[in-house]
Amino acid sequence: MRALRWHGNKDLRIDEIPEPELRPGWVKVKNAWAGICGSDLHEYTVGPKNVPIEPHALTKETVPSVLGHEFSGTIAELGPGVTDLKVGQKVAVFPVLTDGSCYWCSQDTYGLCPKWGFLGYSGYGGGMAEYVCVEREAIHIIPDNMPLDVAALVEPLAVAWHAVKVADLGPDADALVVGAGPIGIAVVHCLLAHGITSVTVTEPSPSRAEHAKNAGAAHVLNPMTEDVLELSKQIGDGRGFHAVFDCAGVQVAFDTALACVRGKGKIVNIAIFETPLVIKTPNIINRRSITYVGSNIYTRGEFQEVIDAIASGKIKNPEKMITGKVSLKDAVIDGFETLLMQKDKHVKILIDATSG
Amino acid sequence: MRALRWHGNKDLRIDEIPEPELRPGWVKVKNAWAGICGSDLHEYTVGPKNVPIEPHALTKETVPSVLGHEFSGTIAELGPGVTDLKVGQKVAVFPVLTDGSCYWCSQDTYGLCPKWGFLGYSGYGGGMAEYVCVEREAIHIIPDNMPLDVAALVEPLAVAWHAVKVADLGPDADALVVGAGPIGIAVVHCLLAHGITSVTVTEPSPSRAEHAKNAGAAHVLNPMTEDVLELSKQIGDGRGFHAVFDCAGVQVAFDTALACVRGKGKIVNIAIFETPLVIKTPNIINRRSITYVGSNIYTRGEFQEVIDAIASGKIKNPEKMITGKVSLKDAVIDGFETLLMQKDKHVKILIDATSG
Ligand SMILES: [Zn+2]
Ligand SMILES: [Zn+2]
Repeated sequence: MRALRWHGNKDLRIDEIPEPELRPGWVKVKNAWAGICGSDLHEYTVGPKNVPIEPHALTKETVPSVLGHEFSGTIAELGPGVTDLKVGQKVAVFPVLTDGSCYWCSQDTYGLCPKWGFLGYSGYGGGMAEYVCVEREAIHIIPDNMPLDVAALVEPLAVAWHAVKVADLGPDADALVVGAGPIGIAVVHCLLAHGITSVTVTEPSPSRAEHAKNAGAAHVLNPMTEDVLELSKQIGDGRGFHAVFDCAGVQVAFDTALACVRGKGKIVNIAIFETPLVIKTPNIINRRSITYVGSNIYTRGEFQEVIDAIASGKIKNPEKMITGKVSLKDAVIDGFETLLMQKDKHVKILIDATSG
Repeated sequence: MRALRWHGNKDLRIDEIPEPELRPGWVKVKNAWAGICGSDLHEYTVGPKNVPIEPHALTKETVPSVLGHEFSGTIAELGPGVTDLKVGQKVAVFPVLTDGSCYWCSQDTYGLCPKWGFLGYSGYGGGMAEYVCVEREAIHIIPDNMPLDVAALVEPLAVAWHAVKVADLGPDADALVVGAGPIGIAVVHCLLAHGITSVTVTEPSPSRAEHAKNAGAAHVLNPMTEDVLELSKQIGDGRGFHAVFDCAGVQVAFDTALACVRGKGKIVNIAIFETPLVIKTPNIINRRSITYVGSNIYTRGEFQEVIDAIASGKIKNPEKMITGKVSLKDAVIDGFETLLMQKDKHVKILIDATSG
């Protein structure tokens, strides 16, 4: 079968590799769509970051790794012992790999499992290939009326869904999303799905700002040309945002978050940082009773909640996040390179895994 | 009457001033004991910090200010309209001043009240004088069997009590207190009062470490000579502390906190920082689902909870925090200067306000 594999920094290849073998209790999925994630781009430009150079603790595999952890497909074959599924069912795949036996796995905090990994990085294949074999537990059946391309958005939406749950807001809350990249856009969708209508986004890029408006943000501010702190005083009761989602991971974004969060409010860190972060005025954290909290990986339950929220219409028009589709054979140039060159124009480019 | 007043940096004076006038709805207190706080020392050495150079928004007063916000006394006289108290009753005084009418006051977040202040800094006098007049609402009657010197500890214990409540720990939690100054010692007392017995303290000073042991800490580690991270793995289930209380406010304390806090754990900031704080590895905050939360001022309810916890014996032997007593006339040399010279030897020095 055809697969997009990471061989090295700036070295992604479309390889012809054997189809994965089905094990007892596992399921073979014919992949449909796989989203290109910011961390995939990272792996492409400055990797290895997530891919295993040494044998991975759980999978024992090393690079080259099949990429793709945001993906959907249909069940192609059931391994021995799997009796509750049917060939042909449409699925979204929960991509987090854990041994499932440790304390942290029992707490749904997979990122602390000593053996944790990710389909699409750590071995066992991924979504950017014609087929993948996964444990039964990773299979989430999607409703008949949910398109398979939308099902590939479940994973990035689950990242945002978890962050919104961490913020634990009531429907009357005022929320600020700093940065309208793919994660920021997903947070907007998930806030609206939680009934939070006062969603403000700060984003300097005009095309990203447009994506934020399309996603349903009530206010979109340009931090380069507008005084975000002053304008935010006209939102809600003027006392600042109940929660600020840092989806940018740069110093200025945190500074904005700390300036605009209200007393007793939360700053949710959902970004990847390349540099240390300076809290210039740490006494503000006390004086204003601010909470700065990190948002880790979604749980299995939250992954399913996102599927349910799309199915019920709570997450509205998630398909608007899809701004491009490319074939597997053209994925490096039309997908990865396009995102690098024109990242502001896109939210999510999906790779058609069936086009192999 | 005699009063200790801040006139300037390194300029505290024992002044003879008029007794304060009683207003309707207010209560005149004959002060008994007043503790010298770290922020009083700060005001002495590097002030003005809290004292008003311009007329204070609420009190309209400016320096010189009577110091003393941790204090006890007996009711000397009742203002018109105060009918539920009796002259001679022993009291602890809630020192936070607010206009009481704003949104943040209604939320018990006094530190965000635009007019907030403190008795002992902002005007209306304070505990380091023979008398003070305060609103009825500031009066907390203490039980007959509670000594007045212990009642002067209610305020610093309330600071710690609030922080422990912010951490929201179960009795099986493992707690780490970084720094065994007066706030750290108060946190140890309050953790134990909440039924949390696994209390570890890191403190480089041998005499402060001794105070921590006296307060009831289960483990006291010296970060200069011991590997705190390694030793902490022998505590509880070895996965780190459910909460770390930063009572030091220096970079190395935060670094220790972040290294030693367990996944999903909390770092409670209860310190005063003199410099910016660097989070060297911000991605750890996400990856490990860490919460960094500031602890603001106690509420009126929490101030009363501390009185009740002392009265019921939940806070054990708080009098151990009192390491010195001085007369009002000698308070600058024997109190403030002694604390500056020998700060590690003392937890709390009380000023005898009746000795005027
Ligand atoms: Zn595990
Ligand atoms: Zn107020």
